[in-house]
Amino acid sequence: MDLLKVKSYDEAIFEIVKAFEKLNLKKTINLNILDAKDYILAEDIFSNENLPHFKKSTMDGYAINYLDSNGANESIPSVLNIKETISMGKKPLKSLNRGETSQIFTGGMLPEGADAVIPIEYTEKMNDNLVLVYKPMHYLENVIDIGDDSKKGDLYFKRGKRIDSKTISALASLGISKVNVYDKLKAIIISTGDEIIDIDKKLEDAKMRDINSYMLFSLLNDLNVEVIYRKHIVDDYEKIKQEIENNYDLVIVSGSSSKGEKDYIPLIGKELKPGLLFHGISIKPGKPTSLSINDKTMILGLPGNPVSCYAIFVSVFKKAWYKYFNIEDSFKIKAKLSRNIASNGGKTLVQLVDLYYKDDELIANPIFGFSNNISNVSKAKGFFILEENSEGLFEDEYVKVELI
Amino acid sequence: MDLLKVKSYDEAIFEIVKAFEKLNLKKTINLNILDAKDYILAEDIFSNENLPHFKKSTMDGYAINYLDSNGANESIPSVLNIKETISMGKKPLKSLNRGETSQIFTGGMLPEGADAVIPIEYTEKMNDNLVLVYKPMHYLENVIDIGDDSKKGDLYFKRGKRIDSKTISALASLGISKVNVYDKLKAIIISTGDEIIDIDKKLEDAKMRDINSYMLFSLLNDLNVEVIYRKHIVDDYEKIKQEIENNYDLVIVSGSSSKGEKDYIPLIGKELKPGLLFHGISIKPGKPTSLSINDKTMILGLPGNPVSCYAIFVSVFKKAWYKYFNIEDSFKIKAKLSRNIASNGGKTLVQLVDLYYKDDELIANPIFGFSNNISNVSKAKGFFILEENSEGLFEDEYVKVELI
Repeated sequence: MDLLKVKSYDEAIFEIVKAFEKLNLKKTINLNILDAKDYILAEDIFSNENLPHFKKSTMDGYAINYLDSNGANESIPSVLNIKETISMGKKPLKSLNRGETSQIFTGGMLPEGADAVIPIEYTEKMNDNLVLVYKPMHYLENVIDIGDDSKKGDLYFKRGKRIDSKTISALASLGISKVNVYDKLKAIIISTGDEIIDIDKKLEDAKMRDINSYMLFSLLNDLNVEVIYRKHIVDDYEKIKQEIENNYDLVIVSGSSSKGEKDYIPLIGKELKPGLLFHGISIKPGKPTSLSINDKTMILGLPGNPVSCYAIFVSVFKKAWYKYFNIEDSFKIKAKLSRNIASNGGKTLVQLVDLYYKDDELIANPIFGFSNNISNVSKAKGFFILEENSEGLFEDEYVKVELI
Repeated sequence: MDLLKVKSYDEAIFEIVKAFEKLNLKKTINLNILDAKDYILAEDIFSNENLPHFKKSTMDGYAINYLDSNGANESIPSVLNIKETISMGKKPLKSLNRGETSQIFTGGMLPEGADAVIPIEYTEKMNDNLVLVYKPMHYLENVIDIGDDSKKGDLYFKRGKRIDSKTISALASLGISKVNVYDKLKAIIISTGDEIIDIDKKLEDAKMRDINSYMLFSLLNDLNVEVIYRKHIVDDYEKIKQEIENNYDLVIVSGSSSKGEKDYIPLIGKELKPGLLFHGISIKPGKPTSLSINDKTMILGLPGNPVSCYAIFVSVFKKAWYKYFNIEDSFKIKAKLSRNIASNGGKTLVQLVDLYYKDDELIANPIFGFSNNISNVSKAKGFFILEENSEGLFEDEYVKVELI
């Protein structure tokens, strides 16, 4: 294929990030934290106070001055005067002098003069006023001190954090009920190709099902991108061009991006301003990928081959999307290759793998086969990238696998 | 704590599964695949046909009988007669005899008589009727044969598969636009405790923010469980009881489950039929967990302590939910412990860990600290289970970490 403006893997990602920046697609909105799942934080999150804001018991028992338990044991308990039972959520009514104690529950506030809690199982209540203590406690034993959880000014999350259930829990703990996040990007999906039919239609002649628009719909959803509509268009220059002119943030087109007769996307890209940014990535699979922008819209032309389309989406577009929004790179898992991987002749390789344990060692088993067999993708647990200049990898070498 | 009906970790999971089965909460609904993400498949998915259903080209080039390319090279090309250009999505109009060829594009259907495709870069078109072929091809080279992707009857997914973007792509490839899935369970969340205030309220006295209802809301959403409402109730037996009687599938209560004075959930459980199934799990953190059922509803009493509540949800409830719906167990990652872990005295330990690479080795760094510090959870990348009878683990031993 004699493609124009072919980019390396890293360059392609960089170009997409630059295009995002040029289009300026970050718009901040303020959401209730329960509605914010999967959104990206548009602000740094700090603790605004010391937490807990009081000395808190971690046990049901008695709040004491720890010195009063020194030397206590089963035979010679300490004897303490009970001042009160501290109510949950309330300030203690009485402070303690040496030799005094108050009953307390888990989560209760220690009274003035107390610095430890003796669990109820090491005590024996004699009457309403007296309790025996059978075990010595350390200073602050069974107590969370003020600020132990977080200190005022502690950084919890940085801008670019994708919000998950752990983030929501921590935001709640900080008393933050609304957060600034980046609004969802809006995308349309166009699948092109005279041979493509909707998946409900009967598969006959040399037709092929429209796998890609379903796949891209779900993959965009994974990134919290809103898909306005998806549409199949037979290869028609004007119709495809019209769709691109609808001013959504993203137009993702599958098919029509290689150098064949009816590959309109790069041609349409050239007519836009600024226009076609690249056509072709030095990668396998997925070479015929193109990127164009006009003043409002990014047009990503993806291969019609479903596996190539999938590979480019997760290894190139998603990476660029992460970089643009400052999202921390995906966690990768080290695994041992089950077989040799040949050099890819100067091109980057996106290699799908299955992952399993064998003799307690995690094995990455490359999935080969025909590149338009989407069942391969559904068998894969992840992929790794073989860099363009790699001379290949041997069986038993380690790779870092990104889960998909 | 003198808890009643204390269960081991495995027993607790088993009791929850049994309770699910008794309540019979699996209800099958039929959804469009694009709406089915995160649902659980309620049927096995097979391929109903051979895919591809025709001999398909993987290249732009010329369909040939491979024997016609035997011995061809740069100096002595084979000369073939061009019969037609095969249209995408259409059946070829002409079959090939020896010495004949038709132009074909990637994804196009091979004509009768063809068994290989020579890529266009190894050919030279002399005129509309003649093409030179410069390279020998193998049988079926650059061709996907009928049924190579999947064969009629191939099992793609088993009942119990959680639907993700890969599943949706594969379903589309099989021409399946609607699937049977299990309907979402419906849950209500009740947080109890006199000391609990909503996260919008000013934190004063010994109050504590209602972290758990936000946390449980998001965790239940992760499991695709629908939360009908969440509510904070001060510790009031009758009011809590009323909520339980609303007949939702699940009532998840945080707090009020230990053996203190105001711990109503197990008491209410005892009044139900069949009633309280267990009260207490031999686990750390999270011992004061209870399970009760009536004829329509499961009542799970979780600890008020946010970290314990989180730990029990992900290590016990989620596991049981997976087992009930036959979902494949979560993938675990082997990592090296950064320090010793003491035996937990006969109790199961749920240990939160951070994960990072050091000298290219994946390290699991246990996160200790105060168990109600939810910031610990937000720092954790996963957890591992130390079994009840373990004598502890040494630094540099390996653990299998479940990502959270």
